[in-house]
Amino acid sequence: MVATPSPQDSASEIAALVAALRQGSRRALARAITYVENYDPRRTALLQALPPATDLPYIVGITGPPGAGKSSLIGALTTVLRQRGRRVGIVAVDPDSPFTGGAVLGDRIRMLQHTEDDGVYIRSMSSRGNPGGLARATWEVLQVLGGAGFDVLIVETTGVGQTELAIRHFADTVVLVVTPGGGDAIQAIKSGIMEVAHVFAVNKADLPGADVTASQLKQALNLRPSQDWRPPVLPVISTTNEGIAALWEAIESHYAAIEQAGGLAAVRRDRMYAQLSLMAESELRARFHAYLRNRPPSWDDLMRRLARGQTSPSLAAEELVDQFIETSCSRGGPPLV
Amino acid sequence: MVATPSPQDSASEIAALVAALRQGSRRALARAITYVENYDPRRTALLQALPPATDLPYIVGITGPPGAGKSSLIGALTTVLRQRGRRVGIVAVDPDSPFTGGAVLGDRIRMLQHTEDDGVYIRSMSSRGNPGGLARATWEVLQVLGGAGFDVLIVETTGVGQTELAIRHFADTVVLVVTPGGGDAIQAIKSGIMEVAHVFAVNKADLPGADVTASQLKQALNLRPSQDWRPPVLPVISTTNEGIAALWEAIESHYAAIEQAGGLAAVRRDRMYAQLSLMAESELRARFHAYLRNRPPSWDDLMRRLARGQTSPSLAAEELVDQFIETSCSRGGPPLV
Repeated sequence: MVATPSPQDSASEIAALVAALRQGSRRALARAITYVENYDPRRTALLQALPPATDLPYIVGITGPPGAGKSSLIGALTTVLRQRGRRVGIVAVDPDSPFTGGAVLGDRIRMLQHTEDDGVYIRSMSSRGNPGGLARATWEVLQVLGGAGFDVLIVETTGVGQTELAIRHFADTVVLVVTPGGGDAIQAIKSGIMEVAHVFAVNKADLPGADVTASQLKQALNLRPSQDWRPPVLPVISTTNEGIAALWEAIESHYAAIEQAGGLAAVRRDRMYAQLSLMAESELRARFHAYLRNRPPSWDDLMRRLARGQTSPSLAAEELVDQFIETSCSRGGPPLV
Repeated sequence: MVATPSPQDSASEIAALVAALRQGSRRALARAITYVENYDPRRTALLQALPPATDLPYIVGITGPPGAGKSSLIGALTTVLRQRGRRVGIVAVDPDSPFTGGAVLGDRIRMLQHTEDDGVYIRSMSSRGNPGGLARATWEVLQVLGGAGFDVLIVETTGVGQTELAIRHFADTVVLVVTPGGGDAIQAIKSGIMEVAHVFAVNKADLPGADVTASQLKQALNLRPSQDWRPPVLPVISTTNEGIAALWEAIESHYAAIEQAGGLAAVRRDRMYAQLSLMAESELRARFHAYLRNRPPSWDDLMRRLARGQTSPSLAAEELVDQFIETSCSRGGPPLV
């Protein structure tokens, strides 16, 4: 049996962990991320000891539909950043699919060229390991990577809709990656991501239709109300590194524009409202999932009444939520998860 | 000032409303949906008076990426159903985008051919009107449509990820719509929707690449563990109605397969667990959004501490969730929303 560490032990362990993290220890990094992901009791002390969220390194969000080649692009971008001496932390947030995993793993393999390099750290996160709490866990891993002294953080997200749009609450520069043809550009325009992306990369730009896709994006951008920053549309070919240096320069230009317009700290402060809501929703969902995993006492009764048509799914849902709230507040102690 | 209706008035009003609904009154339908959408105090009584969820008409889910032509396909399918004398209720769940609305409205226009027809009802639902509670609201509208005597209910959803996959908890038959080329098939395979769809429609089948897309889907389906139902892959052209009758026959075949395998009621009972979790999560999220809209008392203090780096976003989120739970349970009265 392992004794629970006393608060004093815990505090000195966390201080040592954060110091090792700062000195670049890979073991410390792995341990810190484990604390965060497993909701370890030492997690709160760790988060308090890490540099505050406002001081995180520059965060680049890379998003786009599945198959757009985001992982390859991140691999190529990382090569460019390493050539310039930057240490790169990458968090790949996997699609919400509760089914597939193989395809995602396949994508990650394309980043493997960097796994031997101490200046690069790659972490995949899925909703499987974080039921309901993916946004929270992703942000905490970014804080850990910030504490580990990486110079640039890259977050990869996939898909259309909420997940994709949430990237704007995390990243300082959002890059949308699309491929020629197939309506990627149209999908982007319809999904609302057009309005949140700062840089557009047309990947696989050697394929037919790349020009059409680029001009569709440019036309749509022209329809936006004019803003200080005009998002560039850049052709890139990840597999040959073509256009990747220019892509990084576009990201740096956006950073410069932010600094000129009032500074990164101000932009991050403005983002805080939405970020806190998102994170709190993620926390609440995680607690609720934990509650359901333990099969609440009324569950069987609710299911029976539903099966008999004695209640409706949404009225049963209300009862369940009422019970979750009652249980959570009468418990008093630390959170359920 | 309008007086709050007494419980007795309310009960007789709801009885009259449900009776009018059953007789096909469009005004009653509009009013019932308003009660549900606005969280009217009479909503609970209404839901209790409607036919139970287990007795709903057959529900067809139509899903697929933006631009696949789902709305046109639903328009064409509705024409076929009307020719066969079926009354059709359609709920179009809009993408989660908090930005666009125009494009979606444009899609809806393609269904307008049916707006003069009393045997068709079309309702768009967006997350804008239902912050956090879209799943709950969608299901309640389906219950209202069931009470209004429609024979077939169609739910349209868009996108990749959770939203798209959630359709399997709502629909008896899930139809995935893709278009030729552009990697729609590959995206479907990667997103996990392959494993939940029962019928595959390759829309715009007159475009080049339709055969390739169809055979990619068939190959992926061959890799699935063998099941009783083998999903067909059907070419359709919504604009000319080609293949639409065959699509409906495929949906009916799936229904027949369900009946043979143990019956629709059993399938719906099996779905109930996931459906209740989903709905409860939706309810919880809606309450939390309502809590945030009223700007909780500690909000300013939390934001200040965040801006100063005195707390981290996820620790602030925990505080906020704790406070939400405390407020919700100490209130005692009806739900906050």
